[in-house]
Amino acid sequence: MIRIVGIGPRREDMTIMASQTLQEADVVIGYGGYIRQIKDLLEGKKVISLGMGQEVNRAELAIDYYKKGCKVVLISSGDPGIYGMANVLHQVMGKYSGLEIEVIPGVSAVNYSAALLGAPLHDFAVISLSDLLTPLTEIKRKIRAAAEADFIIAFYNPRSKRRTKPFKEALKILLEVRRPETLVGIVKTRDDSSSVSIVSLNCLEEEDVDMNTTIIVGNTFTYMDDGKMITPRGYVLQHSTHPLACEFYDKYLAGEGVEGSNMACEYYPCHSHPQNCTFCYCPFYPCGDPSTGGHWIKDKQVWSCEGCTWIHQDDTVECIQTKLPKLLKKVEDLQDNKKELLKLRRECVFLTK
Amino acid sequence: MIRIVGIGPRREDMTIMASQTLQEADVVIGYGGYIRQIKDLLEGKKVISLGMGQEVNRAELAIDYYKKGCKVVLISSGDPGIYGMANVLHQVMGKYSGLEIEVIPGVSAVNYSAALLGAPLHDFAVISLSDLLTPLTEIKRKIRAAAEADFIIAFYNPRSKRRTKPFKEALKILLEVRRPETLVGIVKTRDDSSSVSIVSLNCLEEEDVDMNTTIIVGNTFTYMDDGKMITPRGYVLQHSTHPLACEFYDKYLAGEGVEGSNMACEYYPCHSHPQNCTFCYCPFYPCGDPSTGGHWIKDKQVWSCEGCTWIHQDDTVECIQTKLPKLLKKVEDLQDNKKELLKLRRECVFLTK
Repeated sequence: MIRIVGIGPRREDMTIMASQTLQEADVVIGYGGYIRQIKDLLEGKKVISLGMGQEVNRAELAIDYYKKGCKVVLISSGDPGIYGMANVLHQVMGKYSGLEIEVIPGVSAVNYSAALLGAPLHDFAVISLSDLLTPLTEIKRKIRAAAEADFIIAFYNPRSKRRTKPFKEALKILLEVRRPETLVGIVKTRDDSSSVSIVSLNCLEEEDVDMNTTIIVGNTFTYMDDGKMITPRGYVLQHSTHPLACEFYDKYLAGEGVEGSNMACEYYPCHSHPQNCTFCYCPFYPCGDPSTGGHWIKDKQVWSCEGCTWIHQDDTVECIQTKLPKLLKKVEDLQDNKKELLKLRRECVFLTK
Repeated sequence: MIRIVGIGPRREDMTIMASQTLQEADVVIGYGGYIRQIKDLLEGKKVISLGMGQEVNRAELAIDYYKKGCKVVLISSGDPGIYGMANVLHQVMGKYSGLEIEVIPGVSAVNYSAALLGAPLHDFAVISLSDLLTPLTEIKRKIRAAAEADFIIAFYNPRSKRRTKPFKEALKILLEVRRPETLVGIVKTRDDSSSVSIVSLNCLEEEDVDMNTTIIVGNTFTYMDDGKMITPRGYVLQHSTHPLACEFYDKYLAGEGVEGSNMACEYYPCHSHPQNCTFCYCPFYPCGDPSTGGHWIKDKQVWSCEGCTWIHQDDTVECIQTKLPKLLKKVEDLQDNKKELLKLRRECVFLTK
């Protein structure tokens, strides 16, 4: 059996199985930098390090040793299945019969970087910006598709000294498609230590990024709290409906609501003129989603909408009205149907951003 | 510090850090099924299991214990950052001040399933088919975008007894956008053991899939060899150019080539009529990519194109001709410029599929 082992991003992220497999190996083959990372585990073994660009040679060498009857391990940083040695070895395998290969999965840069950033992932796309083997047209096509569909995007191999064009192109597409305030997490890793920063898309600089960087671009809902990058999945938090909101929706459901700007209201404009007052009280309160400008009053556990004007936009109101009648038939539905209401909110935030 | 630990898909895929963090914990909170998986590690600790759907309660409870000064660990299967507890806890965190949270990353279902299947990943998208919190319109938008851009797609939570519609919709979109022979890997995991199968998209049945399944849909280049699902990244394998091919390209470069069908050739049609003979010898030989019908003659290490007619299609020839003059100026470029030639091939395969 030829085993391909992912050694993870840091030593302590290595899996139990990866560690056991290395122990059992006779011959360990890998890129010099990764071999150095696990040097103390390799005592008494034949160790072969080959440079960058020699991936096919490493695979061929592993097959040679396997045929000689050795227990061979090929090592890969992170997860061998994500831009690692698994694909190369399987591609080379085609030339031979009777090989047995096992991949030992590992923690990849996307798992690791997300953990350091907080909780930035929901549905996501992983794209390598290396155009050594992949045409730039293909890379650009994927970036555009992922950006337009509001995927979170993790970029691997974003930029090297020589290879700067794909990152420039990526940035250009993202700025065309996504809002400038979209959050971007930057994780730089070197020798078991990492630095983390979070910037908005329009402040992302080429110089922030090198070969040891992983970038995670947030989606429409990604926000920052307490230094963490967070993409909410939309869980319903405990809440009660304010008596004034109940009163408001009693009238609304009886057809006695106001449409558009309520200039007659003594508080108008509570945000800024012009504002649509159809949903004077937000049917999604408390959404708990800071990406539209609200925030928790910490420790009081009260959600403040002061900074959110989204519910007062005409296009928002129009979008909500398409489906609200199905979800809100009586005031109690504000509580009982909260999950579905938050899904409607999610749809409309995307459509009106 | 509240720590969220990913326990991986199988016990042996747990990381060293996850295991250490569990050892140090006073209180461990998780879903019952996952708690059972690591029961032997929890001796002497306060263990609280809460059912599915009680994610917010688990997060609130973790915060309670943290405030009492306990070392709290929330557990998540796989990687807590990928549809796990990291997002919930960070969402709930917003209500409080002064919390410290650390995410311990783990091997997620996409890493694990890919390893069992072989090497199916290149650029990929991860999409959850659960529409409990995410609107179906959003899920469908993402599936279509990922499919059209030729991403490999990993589906999490594809189907439960009650929740069957998103998978039906996914299948419908995939069949509209992708070729019916696209390979699909199906990995079912239960209690530390997994079953693996690989089918073509048009043979994927709803019944193959349940909540414990992860699905990986290949891209245009994904092929099967020796029971493994492999997406080649396009590495250049060692090769020599056949003397007859050199002779052919000498003529071609001198402007003495044939365009279109070479009916005068004594071997016409070597494949089937009509065939375009402009590239009688393939400028990409040996591409080593079985997805277009070629195969290795195993152990002889000879690439056979017998099963590939792609190079003889009119649209293929047209696509190649747009960029070939830049890459192939002399016969030696067939070898020396192989990497760039294979990228051109990759572009044209996608455009002519």
